[in-house]
Amino acid sequence: MRVKLTIEYDGGPYVGWQRQENGRSVQEALEDAATKFALESVTVFGAGRTDAGVHALGQVAHIDLTRDWPADTVRDALNAFLKSEPIVVLAAEAVGDDFDARFSATARVYRYRICDRRPPLALDRDRLWWVSVPLDADAMHEAGQALVGHHDFTTFRAAGCQAKSPVKTVDRLSVTRERDEVTIEVAARSFLHNQVRSFAGSLKLVGDGKWTTDDVAAALAAADRTRCGPVAPAHGLYLVEVVY
Amino acid sequence: MRVKLTIEYDGGPYVGWQRQENGRSVQEALEDAATKFALESVTVFGAGRTDAGVHALGQVAHIDLTRDWPADTVRDALNAFLKSEPIVVLAAEAVGDDFDARFSATARVYRYRICDRRPPLALDRDRLWWVSVPLDADAMHEAGQALVGHHDFTTFRAAGCQAKSPVKTVDRLSVTRERDEVTIEVAARSFLHNQVRSFAGSLKLVGDGKWTTDDVAAALAAADRTRCGPVAPAHGLYLVEVVY
Repeated sequence: MRVKLTIEYDGGPYVGWQRQENGRSVQEALEDAATKFALESVTVFGAGRTDAGVHALGQVAHIDLTRDWPADTVRDALNAFLKSEPIVVLAAEAVGDDFDARFSATARVYRYRICDRRPPLALDRDRLWWVSVPLDADAMHEAGQALVGHHDFTTFRAAGCQAKSPVKTVDRLSVTRERDEVTIEVAARSFLHNQVRSFAGSLKLVGDGKWTTDDVAAALAAADRTRCGPVAPAHGLYLVEVVY
Repeated sequence: MRVKLTIEYDGGPYVGWQRQENGRSVQEALEDAATKFALESVTVFGAGRTDAGVHALGQVAHIDLTRDWPADTVRDALNAFLKSEPIVVLAAEAVGDDFDARFSATARVYRYRICDRRPPLALDRDRLWWVSVPLDADAMHEAGQALVGHHDFTTFRAAGCQAKSPVKTVDRLSVTRERDEVTIEVAARSFLHNQVRSFAGSLKLVGDGKWTTDDVAAALAAADRTRCGPVAPAHGLYLVEVVY
């Protein structure tokens, strides 16, 4: 049976989603749990390869199991084997063999959280990017609209990005404020490596008055990585949802 | 000058608010920071002695400094010296010598956070009490009203509680739900040791159908510690506000 998993995790302790030589990944932790449960070698295919330190509220993955199980049993058993890890399977659902967590996805939604109060953060220090100066969220929202649409996003792409093309379509970008928290939400079918953190770092420059909307548009049009604002830290970023 | 400090902290790494022999306390961390800043020995007097693992969004304390400083300088300097600790001074304010963080307080507000979803918590595992069965928050709220008022709270008091009398007045208790989070908020001039966690543990029994409002009232009337529900874990509790 093929099972679709919806997964929440704290990215802090991991080298990222993807299995790597240099440390423990979320994928590896899930594969260990699935293998212990199913007593067979299980590969976990994820929808989005989040970086080290990036969190997920709704990562999606699929696995194939030889035996048929009730989907809720798969969820509960994986969570039991994941007990020592800050990774939780929120939902498990039996799906057809044509479902592919990565290739069937029609949209991915990321959220970037910033706190712009003067004192640093105690309880949420690993959950939001703390910026000690007040940000103009409305200006950030307006400037962010320059990033919506079909563009060459070379400026907002990590040097090591493995995507074949820097051209992507950003469906939606919003910047909202609630008390001292500024939230950037971005939706697209797919993203380049570091794209959302590059957006966040550049829009922060708009928020604190160093950049205007025109500067963002010019940086985009330049298609030049050196024109990007400083990339925002990983711990403010969340993969919120994968849409199918 | 006397300075009133409003403080946020993650209680997880500490033995509690109060200075103790067996490990690092929040008070000790603040006193270290204040002493380094003021270059004199500083004692920090807190409004509420939170237990090990209990968090604060608005603990209040006062300190006396020989020199006069702008209050914002005190706040920023303390935060600079607290950089490696999950403790933050939200506000510093010059107050008169008659202000006492503990004795001038007219009310303390605590919040207890429960998440009652089936899957465990990944991102908030050290922030809420995870309960895997659905809770009836309305029934908890109703039963909680039996705890409001002037009562002998012996049932809801830790064995080691040092208060002279078990008689306290609970001004207000509410239980509300937002999605899968149930929040208990309690206000009183002062509390007994473990009182809110004892309330939370007992009201949880109401939430999952094991106790009724009458059981809560009977447990209170018995004035017998053995009649308390299991004390809820520390990591769901927050000192929210101290009122003067």
